Amino acid sequence: MNKGALAILVHSGTENWSSQRWKSRFDDVCPDRSVLLLPDTSIDPAAVHYAAVWKPRPADLAAFPNLRVIFNLGAGVDALMADRSLPDVPLVRVAVGDLTARMTEYVVLHVLMHHRQELYLRESQRAKRWAPKLQWAAGAISVGVMGLGALGADAADALKRLGFRVAGWSRSPKTIGGIDCFHGEQQFEAFLRRTDILVCLLPLTPDTRHILNRALFEKLNRSSPLGAPVLINAGRGGLQNEADILQCLDDGTLGAASLDVYATEPLPVDSRFWTHPKVVLTPHNAADTDADEISKYVAQQIARFEAGGALENVVDRGRGY
Amino acid sequence: MNKGALAILVHSGTENWSSQRWKSRFDDVCPDRSVLLLPDTSIDPAAVHYAAVWKPRPADLAAFPNLRVIFNLGAGVDALMADRSLPDVPLVRVAVGDLTARMTEYVVLHVLMHHRQELYLRESQRAKRWAPKLQWAAGAISVGVMGLGALGADAADALKRLGFRVAGWSRSPKTIGGIDCFHGEQQFEAFLRRTDILVCLLPLTPDTRHILNRALFEKLNRSSPLGAPVLINAGRGGLQNEADILQCLDDGTLGAASLDVYATEPLPVDSRFWTHPKVVLTPHNAADTDADEISKYVAQQIARFEAGGALENVVDRGRGY
Ligand SMILES: NC(=O)c1ccc[n+]([C@@H]2O[C@H](COP(=O)([O-])OP(=O)(O)OC[C@H]3O[C@@H](n4cnc5c(N)ncnc54)[C@H](OP(=O)(O)O)[C@@H]3O)[C@@H](O)[C@H]2O)c1
Ligand SMILES: NC(=O)c1ccc[n+]([C@@H]2O[C@H](COP(=O)([O-])OP(=O)(O)OC[C@H]3O[C@@H](n4cnc5c(N)ncnc54)[C@H](OP(=O)(O)O)[C@@H]3O)[C@@H](O)[C@H]2O)c1
Repeated sequence: MNKGALAILVHSGTENWSSQRWKSRFDDVCPDRSVLLLPDTSIDPAAVHYAAVWKPRPADLAAFPNLRVIFNLGAGVDALMADRSLPDVPLVRVAVGDLTARMTEYVVLHVLMHHRQELYLRESQRAKRWAPKLQWAAGAISVGVMGLGALGADAADALKRLGFRVAGWSRSPKTIGGIDCFHGEQQFEAFLRRTDILVCLLPLTPDTRHILNRALFEKLNRSSPLGAPVLINAGRGGLQNEADILQCLDDGTLGAASLDVYATEPLPVDSRFWTHPKVVLTPHNAADTDADEISKYVAQQIARFEAGGALENVVDRGRGY
Repeated sequence: MNKGALAILVHSGTENWSSQRWKSRFDDVCPDRSVLLLPDTSIDPAAVHYAAVWKPRPADLAAFPNLRVIFNLGAGVDALMADRSLPDVPLVRVAVGDLTARMTEYVVLHVLMHHRQELYLRESQRAKRWAPKLQWAAGAISVGVMGLGALGADAADALKRLGFRVAGWSRSPKTIGGIDCFHGEQQFEAFLRRTDILVCLLPLTPDTRHILNRALFEKLNRSSPLGAPVLINAGRGGLQNEADILQCLDDGTLGAASLDVYATEPLPVDSRFWTHPKVVLTPHNAADTDADEISKYVAQQIARFEAGGALENVVDRGRGY
């Protein structure tokens, strides 16, 4: 085989994401290329041109002098960005339709749960109480989506279809039909002031770390039918100040929260999030992408790259996403 | 005033639906017409041309010799159809965008809750257990919508947008983009066989009473990632055999159910639905329509009718809906 080898470097506890599973997937989609699992002392490091990684240890990749592209097997590259020894070659992240569609399912589900008073209705069921509360229509609720990338833009579109008033916020200006687009720090406050349900789909970068804090929550709209604003975070745990979220839920600054991501994962058993009556939590499974889709995506990018085409979804190391 | 009077006949326990509230709404939208609350012995029965009703008592309307149109203030006319003394004038039901959009919210929420294993995830949260289960994509699930009228067609469209495989079943043949349309008794079994999540938005008629029974549940698809089929009924309680639902949940013929409507409402406290771990129940509030929208709709229909135009959404008494 003359083609550069693809090295796999995966640290994951779940069986479906084991190195062995990734190896057999990549063997299937790259039949004419050698696919190897690191660490592997039998191979010539110079033969490795590509690396497919998930949570590698710092310096794991430094040994390969001819590395051409690093493929991160997930959408968020915050863990990789923290590794200063990461070789300076293009870093590609995952952006596939399957991931986007699953995140949209999560966002639509959790927005609807809060909008339609599910916490109250389940409590009524437990109490055997037939007590419908006044229910407003989706058009009475402004959803604000932080991050209008692959994920945020699709979630915003699906929410619009259901009748919500939808706004989005990004770094650069955008125009998306039917969505009120805000951008940059200057327009951030205006975006927050009109938001009843805040959905965070930002990447974690030095600019966005702990952006979900009390000062932000206090700017959200307080005069919606919901009574108090709601937070939904499926970006990264590092985006949120967890002590602030708990205090704001307790003092009414926030009415409820759906969280999929946490500062520490798995969420420690002593976290108050587990038992807080206003928290709907999920174990970082908002968008469990189909691994076959990811391996196909990587194989296609390698083929295009070797044919002289451009790589897609290359991370901008300056911005950090 | 020369215009025929509009008589209001509402029996409802909820404040927002009180007769007085309806009177002031209709006074607003019919400023040049006398609007009266029945019973009212001071008026000449011959002056009443229109009636706006909600759960009238049988024979309540028989006293008005010049009645031209009866407007039912809700979408379902099953209660009225049971009244054999109902004057033989056009009976108009509610079909407004606000109602449709709210029902679609309900359907999308409950389909997503079952699809995304919410019952399991809430149980995990209560147990402080970080244990994500394998999650399939929407494209792995076939939703079947019984009834492709104003409500069913819109719910089907919204589910399609989220990536579900969607089929529908109606009495007459239909063609709806992206929806697999089945109709009539002959195609009923094929429709059921491919259905993982069954959503019922049928009207209650002699043909549909107790259609949701064990024989039907046994025909649903048993080989979906959900493990067992799921029932969602927001049509009418009379559509369901409640003993069958409970037995089928207990023996695994059904995996779970979301119910908004019941044979007896409010649902009696001794109903097993309240406490069944696989039942997600709501107090007949799937689509609490904005009453202002309904009064405007009635006023517009009267204006069009008096200008010689056709009434919309007239019930076919032969079919019963
Ligand atoms: N919970 C889960 O299961 C899960 C799964 C997948 C992904 N995620 C998370 O979701 C994140 C977003 O994914 P994506 O594919 O949508 O990313 P993306 O396409 O890179 O989009 C990121 C968006 O955030 C905006 N943004 C970044 N920094 C900003 C700042 N400082 N101020 C304002 N806006 C800023 C960007 O603005 P511009 O458009 O102007 O660049 C862009 O609109 C990932 O980074 C990952 O952390 C979570
Ligand atoms: N839970 C709530 O809050 C709530 C609120 C509003 C309404 N509802 C219920 O929802 C029902 C549907 O409302 P809608 O506005 O969509 O009614 P619709 O426009 O009259 O549509 C009824 C649909 O059911 C189909 N259908 C009727 N009888 C059938 C049969 N025997 N076999 C097969 N299909 C049959 C019809 O087929 P064709 O198209 O061939 O005629 C039509 O597609 C109402 O009747 C009401 O009971 C519940």
